Amino acid sequence: MAHRPRLLITLGDVAGIGPEIVAKAWVALQDICKPIVVGDVEWVERGTKFTDHSLIVKPVESVAAARPSPQVIPVVQATQADLRNVKPGQLSAAAGQAAYDFLCAAIDAVLAKQADGIVTLPLNKEGLHAAGIKQPGHTEILAERTGVKEFGMMLYAPPVKPLKNAIGVVHVTLHMRLRDVFTHITTDAVHEKIRLLDGVMTKLLPPPQTWQAANRPRLAVAALNPHASDGGIFGDEEARILAPAVERARDEGIDVTGPIPSDAVFVRARNGEFDGVVAMIHDHGHIALKLMAGLAAVNVTLGLPIVRTSVAHGTAYDIASQGKAREQSLLEAAHVAALLAQS
Amino acid sequence: MAHRPRLLITLGDVAGIGPEIVAKAWVALQDICKPIVVGDVEWVERGTKFTDHSLIVKPVESVAAARPSPQVIPVVQATQADLRNVKPGQLSAAAGQAAYDFLCAAIDAVLAKQADGIVTLPLNKEGLHAAGIKQPGHTEILAERTGVKEFGMMLYAPPVKPLKNAIGVVHVTLHMRLRDVFTHITTDAVHEKIRLLDGVMTKLLPPPQTWQAANRPRLAVAALNPHASDGGIFGDEEARILAPAVERARDEGIDVTGPIPSDAVFVRARNGEFDGVVAMIHDHGHIALKLMAGLAAVNVTLGLPIVRTSVAHGTAYDIASQGKAREQSLLEAAHVAALLAQS
Repeated sequence: MAHRPRLLITLGDVAGIGPEIVAKAWVALQDICKPIVVGDVEWVERGTKFTDHSLIVKPVESVAAARPSPQVIPVVQATQADLRNVKPGQLSAAAGQAAYDFLCAAIDAVLAKQADGIVTLPLNKEGLHAAGIKQPGHTEILAERTGVKEFGMMLYAPPVKPLKNAIGVVHVTLHMRLRDVFTHITTDAVHEKIRLLDGVMTKLLPPPQTWQAANRPRLAVAALNPHASDGGIFGDEEARILAPAVERARDEGIDVTGPIPSDAVFVRARNGEFDGVVAMIHDHGHIALKLMAGLAAVNVTLGLPIVRTSVAHGTAYDIASQGKAREQSLLEAAHVAALLAQS
Repeated sequence: MAHRPRLLITLGDVAGIGPEIVAKAWVALQDICKPIVVGDVEWVERGTKFTDHSLIVKPVESVAAARPSPQVIPVVQATQADLRNVKPGQLSAAAGQAAYDFLCAAIDAVLAKQADGIVTLPLNKEGLHAAGIKQPGHTEILAERTGVKEFGMMLYAPPVKPLKNAIGVVHVTLHMRLRDVFTHITTDAVHEKIRLLDGVMTKLLPPPQTWQAANRPRLAVAALNPHASDGGIFGDEEARILAPAVERARDEGIDVTGPIPSDAVFVRARNGEFDGVVAMIHDHGHIALKLMAGLAAVNVTLGLPIVRTSVAHGTAYDIASQGKAREQSLLEAAHVAALLAQS
């Protein structure tokens, strides 16, 4: 990559696996971007003991002043919270406050054009809550601080075996009771998600091989009901809500098909037929993506004025500071953020 | 296998891929069972052109008279329907009637102890309907003809890569509108499915390695709501309905855990932690099984007085009589039927 973007890596909850992962990923990250850690110097230092690479943790005054290299981890000390008594694997308000501070500092630096995007390591939602932060997670903090009301999340599987190509999944409903999804699944909502997915996957597709080739993602809409309702026997949402959304998007030139039975569409995507799927409920897409991509899965926040990706795993308190954590998701998240920052 | 069970293979809809598959599988089937085709002589003959093996189709008067071998396919002519005008890949009442006749003849032969179980090739539900058959599919015909009111279906993934062990999945709800599942998900229903799954997977586990080892399947219950409701934030079915069912089953000595988030439980099962999963809705289990097992997946009917398994694919009219169909699912279905017949 000729122009590696400057990406901020927020350390997340220091009692989780973030410090270990960033150290393990550091050398490989240099091929993807110019990484800068926004976190806590002492805890980044602790993470370096889990890698054989000889790494120097260098406190820097600002993101603008950071000069990363394969040997040097520049760290912006971004919290005043006292993290000395935080124990790996233990929930604390201090770590929750710090995770919030890291993210705010990173957002401000990107808004000030000191960096090109953010890759977040996991935080603990209970820790945030214990610190008195009112937003439930990263995404809501990002939306509020960048002044955005409408945002979405894409789950992204990079083109690693057994996938033939990358697959992005956007959900029409996510974190709510299954009983409640029905009022949220409207033609407008499905159509909007198709457009969002088309926009972001267009940026993430490999460049066309010839100047004539269109760089258009091939999308599918996954059904809500079993067998896509089997012609109306098991529900009418497919005909009444989903099909009109697909039709409207096709009229706008988007390459989208469906609704397709959910137990078929992900197999077809894995076999190379689709670049993206709009799913109706959380577990349709998450079951498929976790089986297909595992630790390589990445979250991409859509609708923000800044680039933000995230690892798809959590803080993993149960294995924190044990040397068992794996850095693959961070590397994939950085790769996707770099592609988005460059497009 | 010392005592190969006698298994009846019903030809299903002759316009589908059944005739081709049975011919392709024939030689390999001999290692699994003593296979006997219940179908139509002429259409079995047509199927043999898709294999390089030299096979003789031999009409037999009854199941009892059949003597299968790697060279000889014994076929019980089990329908009077005129199948001469049926075209591969085309829906017809004649093929629907024949598929019904094949199944009825097979059921009667197993009830008469002339064979040990049935493996069904796919039929077309619209074809059945066109023939005026009132039952919507194989399973309902089996239940009615064997006098059973309560039955279930298990989706089974054999221990083929990437699986570490076989995985059985039983669903609490299947072919209904997603809106309608909530009234069917009760503690009694979940508990009953756990017991059914425990019973059948006990028969399908490999024999214990030592006489002390218990031959007990390790089961999990998959949640209904995202994140297994995250402690009650996204619904109460997990705490109110699923957990008591798990507890009741554990009190009975069943090795079952959960509810576990649906996007985690199948990954854990794939990685060798569970032999079976009880899922709440059709697509939770089907998305996972189709991604994990693909064409190797098998359906097992539970609750019948006779053994019956089925391939997990359909008639595949679109590739009928083109030589493209694959026999793997039939071989796996026969293997599972043989295990159940021997236990």
